[in-house]
Amino acid sequence: MAETPEEAVNPRIAYENAFAGKRVLITGGLGFIGSNLAIRLVELEADVLIVDSLIPHYGGNLFNIEPVKDKVRVNIADVRDVNSMNYLVRGQDYLFNLAGQVSHIDSMEDPYTDLEINCRAQLSILEACRHNNPTIKIVYASTRQVYGIPEYLPVDEKHLLRPTDVNGINKMAGEWYHILYNNVYGIRAVSLRLTNTYGPRLLMKHNRQGFVAWFIRQAIDNEEIQIFGDGSQVRDLNYVDDVVEAMLLAAVYDGANGRIFNLGNTPPVSLLEFVRVLLEVCQEFGAGKGGYRLVPFPLDKKRIDIGDYYADYSKIRKTLGWNPQVPLREGLRRTVAYYMQYREHYWD
Amino acid sequence: MAETPEEAVNPRIAYENAFAGKRVLITGGLGFIGSNLAIRLVELEADVLIVDSLIPHYGGNLFNIEPVKDKVRVNIADVRDVNSMNYLVRGQDYLFNLAGQVSHIDSMEDPYTDLEINCRAQLSILEACRHNNPTIKIVYASTRQVYGIPEYLPVDEKHLLRPTDVNGINKMAGEWYHILYNNVYGIRAVSLRLTNTYGPRLLMKHNRQGFVAWFIRQAIDNEEIQIFGDGSQVRDLNYVDDVVEAMLLAAVYDGANGRIFNLGNTPPVSLLEFVRVLLEVCQEFGAGKGGYRLVPFPLDKKRIDIGDYYADYSKIRKTLGWNPQVPLREGLRRTVAYYMQYREHYWD
Repeated sequence: MAETPEEAVNPRIAYENAFAGKRVLITGGLGFIGSNLAIRLVELEADVLIVDSLIPHYGGNLFNIEPVKDKVRVNIADVRDVNSMNYLVRGQDYLFNLAGQVSHIDSMEDPYTDLEINCRAQLSILEACRHNNPTIKIVYASTRQVYGIPEYLPVDEKHLLRPTDVNGINKMAGEWYHILYNNVYGIRAVSLRLTNTYGPRLLMKHNRQGFVAWFIRQAIDNEEIQIFGDGSQVRDLNYVDDVVEAMLLAAVYDGANGRIFNLGNTPPVSLLEFVRVLLEVCQEFGAGKGGYRLVPFPLDKKRIDIGDYYADYSKIRKTLGWNPQVPLREGLRRTVAYYMQYREHYWD
Repeated sequence: MAETPEEAVNPRIAYENAFAGKRVLITGGLGFIGSNLAIRLVELEADVLIVDSLIPHYGGNLFNIEPVKDKVRVNIADVRDVNSMNYLVRGQDYLFNLAGQVSHIDSMEDPYTDLEINCRAQLSILEACRHNNPTIKIVYASTRQVYGIPEYLPVDEKHLLRPTDVNGINKMAGEWYHILYNNVYGIRAVSLRLTNTYGPRLLMKHNRQGFVAWFIRQAIDNEEIQIFGDGSQVRDLNYVDDVVEAMLLAAVYDGANGRIFNLGNTPPVSLLEFVRVLLEVCQEFGAGKGGYRLVPFPLDKKRIDIGDYYADYSKIRKTLGWNPQVPLREGLRRTVAYYMQYREHYWD
């Protein structure tokens, strides 16, 4: 991968008219980010095909696409199913490749399933494209987890990859398969390293996919939020609409091909700040009455924890003109409003 | 993985007495480096168990252990076989984890087999150790291939990993599984990133594992050597005895646990220089009469080629006191002498 030299700042790439009539495949399209992306692509008049396997305890949820259920096609299939993927990639203009095992904890308890989904299936998706649709453009959802414990902050794309869990290692490999197939076979691909993303349609059934969803659920339920450690740990959070926009920008701009971009947000917030804003927002809706409490870090989480993290996202800002638009309080307002209305579809 | 701060230069770690009576498992132990390591460990009075699957066209060759065949145990098994590995790791003091698919070209033609051996089997070996022998010490054979095309030379361990083929990506994951299991579960592990290694017992049956073996074979057979490109491409080469010593040093020194070290050599040599020295050495043995010729790079090799490469190996020099001892001409003399004598066991 030849890194291009420092370049001039691009204006935000225009993508709004790029998807009308285009055939778009979204793996993991019933999940959190995939469904928000599908809804946006329907607005942009794309012809959307969702692939999702609805694995229990993963993020897929048919209710997620309720607003567009008559305007998208849904194909239930597992990305590990080579024959299905060979067929489904045909004729597509874009592939948003979002299907994945995303739980760090689960990857440690069952590393083989994580390997099958995040490595083997990624190889077979890329082979499917190579053999059946080499002109497709792919946007791959990678993760900040590939960096592991930051050596410096903010973390830019030149930071070494030193993942601290099996999920991070396998996502690293999955990302590099995409870059490799771009460079060797010309299958155009871009990788976005997502940081914590939140918003409507986030999985809320359990607490195995990070703190954000669980805190939101507890706040809405008036339960006491337990913060591990002293709450000073720092993260950058993106509202899902901003992440969707980054994906659309990366899809339309061929100058991004073969490249890797951090997403991120400023200012970073501590877990304590996050919880305080969340509780204030919930109180606007008559919830958030459970407060919070600091508790010691459980061992299984502590030993794969990465400490403080926030990204330098100037590369995508300069290249694609992307800048997150939704501030934390506003994003949380929209999120809490969504779950207050549709709670029954996300947890008991 | 916390990188320790710049440290004082250690003297060469004494390892000669560390292996007497110790139980040592070598995966890939009938292969090139594994067999040389086994022979050395027998000299050091270790109790050596070799695991190898003798996959056709891979490096395993029973003749490789001819000098010690009555002093080691050989267990034919595939590292992908979870049950066998669960049994075989028990009671071992050291594991030299050398089994792997090593052909870059093969990894592009059959990425799934590379994934099974270099990723899935590595996970299952580590899980086997975790559940059956958590006090074992592991030395993992990684590769310079994880770096891809160097951004700068010499390449140190802080260089980004940007592999250019499936093998490099999967070896990167395999290496990080080892570091992860060291850091999370305390399964002591060290990774050595090997550069081109040559010497007796190198696979010579085909030319799918790099240029070194093939050039040596052609020179011995008085065939014309074909050098791709203009011959100016630079590499650092290690004689196998030096690599074996690095592995033994890494095994005994617990200060190396969880760390990654480049091997390397100075001065780097161009392919043209390598061929000239090789031909001169062969001529001492009455061979090397075929000369050489520059030919254009074939496309399938060019697109995964990494250009010039040589390593900065000061980290292992400072930490373990390792320094390669065998100069190129001397190493090639020993290598050519070996194959002149045992040619029939390596190619027709």
